[in-house]
Amino acid sequence: MIVSMKRGASREEIDHVCRRIEQFGYRVHSINGVERVVIGAVGRGDLTQAIEQLESAAGVETVVPISQPFKLVSREIQPARSVIRVNGCRIGGGDFTVIAGPCSVESEEQILATARAVQAAGGRILRGGAFKPRTSPYDFQGLEVEGLRLLRKAKECTGLAIITEVVSDSTLEMVAEYADIIQVGARNMQNYALLKAAGRLDKPVMLKRGFASTIKELLLSAEYIASTGNQRVILCERGIRTFETYTRNTLDLAAVPALKELTHLPVLVDPSHGTGRRSLIPAMARAAVACGADGLMVEVHPCPENAVSDGPQSLDLEGFARMMRELEPYIALWKQQREAEDASAADAACRQ
Amino acid sequence: MIVSMKRGASREEIDHVCRRIEQFGYRVHSINGVERVVIGAVGRGDLTQAIEQLESAAGVETVVPISQPFKLVSREIQPARSVIRVNGCRIGGGDFTVIAGPCSVESEEQILATARAVQAAGGRILRGGAFKPRTSPYDFQGLEVEGLRLLRKAKECTGLAIITEVVSDSTLEMVAEYADIIQVGARNMQNYALLKAAGRLDKPVMLKRGFASTIKELLLSAEYIASTGNQRVILCERGIRTFETYTRNTLDLAAVPALKELTHLPVLVDPSHGTGRRSLIPAMARAAVACGADGLMVEVHPCPENAVSDGPQSLDLEGFARMMRELEPYIALWKQQREAEDASAADAACRQ
Amino acid sequence: MIVSMKRGASREEIDHVCRRIEQFGYRVHSINGVERVVIGAVGRGDLTQAIEQLESAAGVETVVPISQPFKLVSREIQPARSVIRVNGCRIGGGDFTVIAGPCSVESEEQILATARAVQAAGGRILRGGAFKPRTSPYDFQGLEVEGLRLLRKAKECTGLAIITEVVSDSTLEMVAEYADIIQVGARNMQNYALLKAAGRLDKPVMLKRGFASTIKELLLSAEYIASTGNQRVILCERGIRTFETYTRNTLDLAAVPALKELTHLPVLVDPSHGTGRRSLIPAMARAAVACGADGLMVEVHPCPENAVSDGPQSLDLEGFARMMRELEPYIALWKQQREAEDASAADAACRQ
Amino acid sequence: MIVSMKRGASREEIDHVCRRIEQFGYRVHSINGVERVVIGAVGRGDLTQAIEQLESAAGVETVVPISQPFKLVSREIQPARSVIRVNGCRIGGGDFTVIAGPCSVESEEQILATARAVQAAGGRILRGGAFKPRTSPYDFQGLEVEGLRLLRKAKECTGLAIITEVVSDSTLEMVAEYADIIQVGARNMQNYALLKAAGRLDKPVMLKRGFASTIKELLLSAEYIASTGNQRVILCERGIRTFETYTRNTLDLAAVPALKELTHLPVLVDPSHGTGRRSLIPAMARAAVACGADGLMVEVHPCPENAVSDGPQSLDLEGFARMMRELEPYIALWKQQREAEDASAADAACRQ
Repeated sequence: MIVSMKRGASREEIDHVCRRIEQFGYRVHSINGVERVVIGAVGRGDLTQAIEQLESAAGVETVVPISQPFKLVSREIQPARSVIRVNGCRIGGGDFTVIAGPCSVESEEQILATARAVQAAGGRILRGGAFKPRTSPYDFQGLEVEGLRLLRKAKECTGLAIITEVVSDSTLEMVAEYADIIQVGARNMQNYALLKAAGRLDKPVMLKRGFASTIKELLLSAEYIASTGNQRVILCERGIRTFETYTRNTLDLAAVPALKELTHLPVLVDPSHGTGRRSLIPAMARAAVACGADGLMVEVHPCPENAVSDGPQSLDLEGFARMMRELEPYIALWKQQREAEDASAADAACRQ
Repeated sequence: MIVSMKRGASREEIDHVCRRIEQFGYRVHSINGVERVVIGAVGRGDLTQAIEQLESAAGVETVVPISQPFKLVSREIQPARSVIRVNGCRIGGGDFTVIAGPCSVESEEQILATARAVQAAGGRILRGGAFKPRTSPYDFQGLEVEGLRLLRKAKECTGLAIITEVVSDSTLEMVAEYADIIQVGARNMQNYALLKAAGRLDKPVMLKRGFASTIKELLLSAEYIASTGNQRVILCERGIRTFETYTRNTLDLAAVPALKELTHLPVLVDPSHGTGRRSLIPAMARAAVACGADGLMVEVHPCPENAVSDGPQSLDLEGFARMMRELEPYIALWKQQREAEDASAADAACRQ
Repeated sequence: MIVSMKRGASREEIDHVCRRIEQFGYRVHSINGVERVVIGAVGRGDLTQAIEQLESAAGVETVVPISQPFKLVSREIQPARSVIRVNGCRIGGGDFTVIAGPCSVESEEQILATARAVQAAGGRILRGGAFKPRTSPYDFQGLEVEGLRLLRKAKECTGLAIITEVVSDSTLEMVAEYADIIQVGARNMQNYALLKAAGRLDKPVMLKRGFASTIKELLLSAEYIASTGNQRVILCERGIRTFETYTRNTLDLAAVPALKELTHLPVLVDPSHGTGRRSLIPAMARAAVACGADGLMVEVHPCPENAVSDGPQSLDLEGFARMMRELEPYIALWKQQREAEDASAADAACRQ
Repeated sequence: MIVSMKRGASREEIDHVCRRIEQFGYRVHSINGVERVVIGAVGRGDLTQAIEQLESAAGVETVVPISQPFKLVSREIQPARSVIRVNGCRIGGGDFTVIAGPCSVESEEQILATARAVQAAGGRILRGGAFKPRTSPYDFQGLEVEGLRLLRKAKECTGLAIITEVVSDSTLEMVAEYADIIQVGARNMQNYALLKAAGRLDKPVMLKRGFASTIKELLLSAEYIASTGNQRVILCERGIRTFETYTRNTLDLAAVPALKELTHLPVLVDPSHGTGRRSLIPAMARAAVACGADGLMVEVHPCPENAVSDGPQSLDLEGFARMMRELEPYIALWKQQREAEDASAADAACRQ
């Protein structure tokens, strides 16, 4: 942490800041510049607290942190990629994982038809919302428990694993009974009560990036889950809110290689929410594979035009199958690159 | 709702869309333009559903809603301003309401000293966080129930009403026992489980705008609370996230007169979160009064430098008292304008 | 400037960075932290260059500047407010300056009628576009020289000073013949060829903030003009581009007190472009006065419904007169505050 | 164009709007809804003007355009892709085009070394800035004419075509003497004087998306060039400004397939400015190929650590060669897909 004093800060102000830094558990290392005094705080202490309080002290201009505030999810702490096994699929490891299904579970017929098509095309995990967070109170809010039961039925019929969204800490336990992976949606990325509850679970959690959250805030939310006790966290980039209105969100694909540098957790991409337009999904799915994502989450519906939600960004069953065929050569290149990386990492580990 | 077909959409596609529009409960009114066909849907039907499904239909280019999706909170439905009475204070009516207090309740000494200073300077409601949503899991998370008890004590000592934040539906009831107004924070503006729970409460709710939420999304979240049964909702503009980094958020003051046009609910402004910088608070507080806000929410701390959270955006007790004195002539102008508006509204009502 | 090395940076990398810092003219001051080495660069050197090159050096994680990159426009260098005199009006001094007029000059009748109404209502400077930057090539591009001649005529009739926009360095001289203040529009805020040309002029320049430019970038663009030789720069906040679509832009009023802390230059506010909605202009004009702006720039048209551009954000003549009357008590408070500030600044200067 | 009247608009207001619509050259088609009147304007007229003026008319709530405002660059008008030939390279056709080179031309040695490396690795066009638009006036502004001469020398030595940026209409002719493609940079995307000047040129123009410009605004700026007379326009996505600070910009790759739907012009991607971080460039280059871009523009420097500008986002020569090798299988897939598309387009044309 570096504390930069204002030009003309008084000796008393500087001394006071130095004492405060020491109270937070750091050693002081001050630099007398031409224009101002800059004080380095060396060591480990209560970082966030210290930053906020020092910023409030008289004579201080800015306080700049040097260390990252996330620990458990950081690649600095654990360089090796986390691999999360679900239903035989190594998410974050050597398998490119495709999650697909409708926005909402609507009926037995709909979810079974979708599940069969997802499985036939090579998907491994079925998505489907039973509890739906909707912007308007007058929109369909999901089949709730009935939706969970239908997902279980689809699982029994196809062998696909199930992921579904949880929208409050009070319904988490029920959802966890049915799901193989719990999804925390974008709007709840900073619902800390929910994150902590998810951290006490013995199930993988997929955490979607909030549409106005930075990469670092996403990692801090993952840290909530991990620090409460659950290390099996999967991240998902799904687009951020910008001034562009042609697409529903702006899919931030650079977040994928950026996250892979910063964290050992797996990173998926959701091109459905990421674009909001069916016609753009296949191109962005290819791009996601090419930039190193660990998998995809895609919305698929037997008849998007009748979907109770998110139809415009859902592929139909044939469109999904076609996209999966087109992805094949890209996934083959992805596997080559993954193996090359693993070999070089093993090599590096050997040499140490 | 207006459905614009693609250039060259086929007769079958157009007929199909017309049939779908009728199924949603609308009458069809189609216009053959030079370049394309445009279909008006007249009447009242299932709007959101219809929009999404029609956008997915073959041959459709765009679907544009004409009506607003919020009803109960809309000024089109209820032109007269809602006045919410708390502790003798008419929020949204003829009183300019100042809510002030620390970000977090930290100790009896801290909250009592602040409460007395708030009251002495003319504040009417005391804020203070007992459950704190924090970006990092390693930051102070609040005193919880002990914090609520200290707030009650401060109320007993000063007569100020109490507002405090609730962060999950499972702790709402407990918080409601202590608070006069329940605060739903910016990060939970789209936590619909919480909104519905707040809608079942017999207490005023202050809903803060999400930092990446539009004005219309704020109104839809208010509609969640109102449509569940609780009409006593207070809105609060507290800054949105933009590319500007000099301030913590960009305080969107134009949202105040915009909201006053769209809704009958009271609108407060929080210049502390809105700027993140103590030095900018007084100027933005004056601006909030001048543009017609119904009140302010400001962070105040006996010693911001020792605050466990939000110190850089908290005024000290003397700074708060000074700001309140400076605001006096602006509030006097505000009252004149409010009375003139009320007189002209009464006049208009008479003439009808 | 503070250079933070990566965890595990080698001795050679650290030494290399230290040598580079010295080459840029700084002294090295390094701090060995627990996790990493942090190197302070003390003195004055080639800042931007140094930051970029050091960020590229092996082993470097981040480089953080400590000093501001702007000098001439900074309040650190010149604490006293700059006052720019135009037509007897002290912009930035004790006069609250209202600039008003149509978006485009359309005809003699239109500009004369507007000018007379602006003058009658208390405006001091007439705006009007002769060269118009328009998003579509098919929109009206301005009357060009004929527009400039009509502005001169309006000046002769009313005594108002003239401000008009320049859109390229090649037409700057011609525009400067007619205008008392040259306006550089938001889209040209980073048109450096134009800024340098404006810097060689002996006329005040009003620089509007780019709709996606930070406060610091605005100051750096002002620095372009000042460092080329023209110190008479007036800044104008006119809204930034955000995700909110209800208003045309998000008026960043907090930029006003922020800029007043950072620079000695005058700061105006344009609530017309800042909101894009006529109905919001009066409230935001009051707010601009209240938060300490030095003046306003407002679009006014005899018949907004017939305006060739920006009608929806233009007041009509009666609306402008009404707004000016409503602003009077706010401007009176503004003058009191300005005098109090001047007295306390004089007092402080005396004591030194 | 659809005009939606306010609830309770009077008969006079509605009639007045109908008359105005007819004056603009449209036929009126009005729909009496349950809550309000909606008026369709059918035909072809002066769109932008009509929208702005009708929005200003009494009783009007909103005006929604149905047609796109761009014509010449639209795929609705010309479905077949434009192919721009430069130096034997079919940009937008069957060649994936790689443009590479330093941010700034610094010296003969630097530009020749880079040019040879670019050519050896398979690049076809050399970039290099001679006139540099820089945020701070104190930064290096380019070698100007000397830089242009060095680019010509590099062309003679390697046979690479040259692209370089122009920053004002007054220097355009000189730049055009040396360059094979003229670049209009992001900051000048709405410098209309420059766009019109570029439209009078007999040279291809590469237009970079402004960092706060929408996809449609980019197309309108391209329309400026095309409507002035120059149809050879190449678009370039280079990242937009968002709240995310980890990357310098947010690379909006979904703009690539979106633009390919809307326009026949070629679309390149610049992953250097798009991310601002060297380590992210190769992943985003692969993603750009995979999502269907027509080529790449990448910053390369013999020693990024000594670059006078943009070092942190420049690859070194070896890094560039490695990236080009890694791209090979992706480009091979790209060519297959392009040929399949061409075959199916030819097929479709045959059948008509």
